[in-house]
Amino acid sequence: MEKNEAFNYIKNAANSIILPDKKALQNAQKRLDSLTKPAGSLGRLEELAKQIASITGKMDPDISKKLVIVMAADHGVVQEGVSAYPQEVTPQMVYNFMQGGAGINVLAKHAGADVMVVDVGVAAELKIKENNKDKKSIFIDKKVAFGTKNMAKEPAMNPQQAALAVSAGIAVAQDMIDAGYGIIGTGDMGIGNTTASSAIASCICGVDAEKVTGYGTGIDEAGFEKKVQVIRKAIKLNNPDASDGLDVLSKVGGYEIGGIAGVILGCALRKVPVVIDGFISGAGALIAEAIAPVSRHYMIASHCSVEKGHRIVLEKLGLVPLFNFDMRLGEGTGAAIGIGIADAAIKILNEMATFDQAQVSQKKE
Amino acid sequence: MEKNEAFNYIKNAANSIILPDKKALQNAQKRLDSLTKPAGSLGRLEELAKQIASITGKMDPDISKKLVIVMAADHGVVQEGVSAYPQEVTPQMVYNFMQGGAGINVLAKHAGADVMVVDVGVAAELKIKENNKDKKSIFIDKKVAFGTKNMAKEPAMNPQQAALAVSAGIAVAQDMIDAGYGIIGTGDMGIGNTTASSAIASCICGVDAEKVTGYGTGIDEAGFEKKVQVIRKAIKLNNPDASDGLDVLSKVGGYEIGGIAGVILGCALRKVPVVIDGFISGAGALIAEAIAPVSRHYMIASHCSVEKGHRIVLEKLGLVPLFNFDMRLGEGTGAAIGIGIADAAIKILNEMATFDQAQVSQKKE
Repeated sequence: MEKNEAFNYIKNAANSIILPDKKALQNAQKRLDSLTKPAGSLGRLEELAKQIASITGKMDPDISKKLVIVMAADHGVVQEGVSAYPQEVTPQMVYNFMQGGAGINVLAKHAGADVMVVDVGVAAELKIKENNKDKKSIFIDKKVAFGTKNMAKEPAMNPQQAALAVSAGIAVAQDMIDAGYGIIGTGDMGIGNTTASSAIASCICGVDAEKVTGYGTGIDEAGFEKKVQVIRKAIKLNNPDASDGLDVLSKVGGYEIGGIAGVILGCALRKVPVVIDGFISGAGALIAEAIAPVSRHYMIASHCSVEKGHRIVLEKLGLVPLFNFDMRLGEGTGAAIGIGIADAAIKILNEMATFDQAQVSQKKE
Repeated sequence: MEKNEAFNYIKNAANSIILPDKKALQNAQKRLDSLTKPAGSLGRLEELAKQIASITGKMDPDISKKLVIVMAADHGVVQEGVSAYPQEVTPQMVYNFMQGGAGINVLAKHAGADVMVVDVGVAAELKIKENNKDKKSIFIDKKVAFGTKNMAKEPAMNPQQAALAVSAGIAVAQDMIDAGYGIIGTGDMGIGNTTASSAIASCICGVDAEKVTGYGTGIDEAGFEKKVQVIRKAIKLNNPDASDGLDVLSKVGGYEIGGIAGVILGCALRKVPVVIDGFISGAGALIAEAIAPVSRHYMIASHCSVEKGHRIVLEKLGLVPLFNFDMRLGEGTGAAIGIGIADAAIKILNEMATFDQAQVSQKKE
């Protein structure tokens, strides 16, 4: 895609996203109240069922085909020593995803979800055949570049690259929805990406880096101090416009974060619920919301992660996470569990008997 | 079972419960740290996997056969007007469980768990053939009586009846474990049973009834005030000994609560993890812990319910719930979701690749 083409593609997508369907929500509410349980007694499961009804515009949504999309990319900022793991782990983990050995493979399978891995910017030539039937996961090559530049020294990417990353996400989500997937979870892989995510959160939430920076995969106190300094420096140097999602992405973001933003926009455009993973996916959600504020209504926040900035990101997005398991792995692992919970919620809506059907007496007057 | 026989059966079971296996926990920790993820990054899932390893004494626990046991019984105290639903709903819901139309059926199926319904004291002659293949659920008749007496006027049951209810739970759990079930969730059905549960919580946690009483299936403010008064009256009249689980159960409890306590003891005895549902199951857990304090280590708290006493019960038991979905349905619905999470945790332990297997680089020194 050419630069202008990518920009227009994103603009058209953003402009086509409309508010979820209120009527479907009301119908779902009526149905839920007719089922053999005290009204509202399944709490957040009922709220979730109503949200998904409203997103899909259907009283009996079909989310039986489930997918987690793991966006993978590398980060030039690792040159500053901000991560506990070496950069080679990004492609190594992509191979692990393709062989089915990673946390996301196990948890996606548990939820009945397929795994798709998208190379948006891994700093290595990946040797994976697309759609190889022997592999456990689906692979798509959408590489924009071999990792970002070091944002502590220059913008992470140029505006065209930012647009290409987001466009890739929109296109992938739409292709998968065309293939029948009814719910999509977001995931990430990229050594150094909590640093980029903290920078995005600092910009868009308007708080100092220290408030939204955590220990990533496991740096120590000295590493934490350095990380905060690097983020402050990158923001000062590049001066991103917080109101412009693509500008923030290009200056202090990452390709996988742009891809995640695109997946969210693609889902919103196509009226498909999108389950947001942890902190990195949260940064992608901030970018998506900056591009198209209405997209927020299509997001389901799975968990609140250990990364301390995540809570601030969720508040900014107005999302209440479903659970808090003190997780900090990424990959879409929280989203996979969230998809399982969404599935349970929809089964309540679709499969429970009504008071009439089961001949159960109603509440006393 | 005769009275003394039931008492001895419970005493023997309680005395045979030992602390979980520390060595298996350490082995599970080692295994978890060898998997392709930063150490501890799956948070509570890892904690849960270790707990289950320690409960079962195995590094690779098999919890593939899953069961939710719904204990059903009626409560004489409904005569005081403490419930929003008529008593006939108890047997009606038992039929609903057997036909597969209730919330627990949908959520248990979602988690891959079977449903067993035990009549421990329903105030109606149930017309259900045990083990009818056409039915969705397994049914067992362990009826001790046609509901409890009205605890606001006399003890809910006599000591022998309390012992029989607990014994029934122990026996059912052991039979099901013999049949291959590797994890069991507790559930309840019984109009009026939040009143009995609040009375138990008030006694054993040593707090006034008002602190542990909620709105049940949906009473109003006047109903709430009456409920608190009834509980205070029942405790004053019957004067249960808070240190004696069977005494509390017999004076202000319920047959299904005794059954749940028994299931917990049976699981602990047989080294099987038991997933505790909401407030009523929590009351059962209080009784179980009063009878055999070590049984606490075998409990997994699924959720924190809307019933305000539940938090106090969980604190007393030293349990931290996995999630809070604002649920208040009972039936084992929270336990079913908890079983699904436990299943995910064990799959992480058993199915993820190690750093060596996947040839992924370790953390930098």
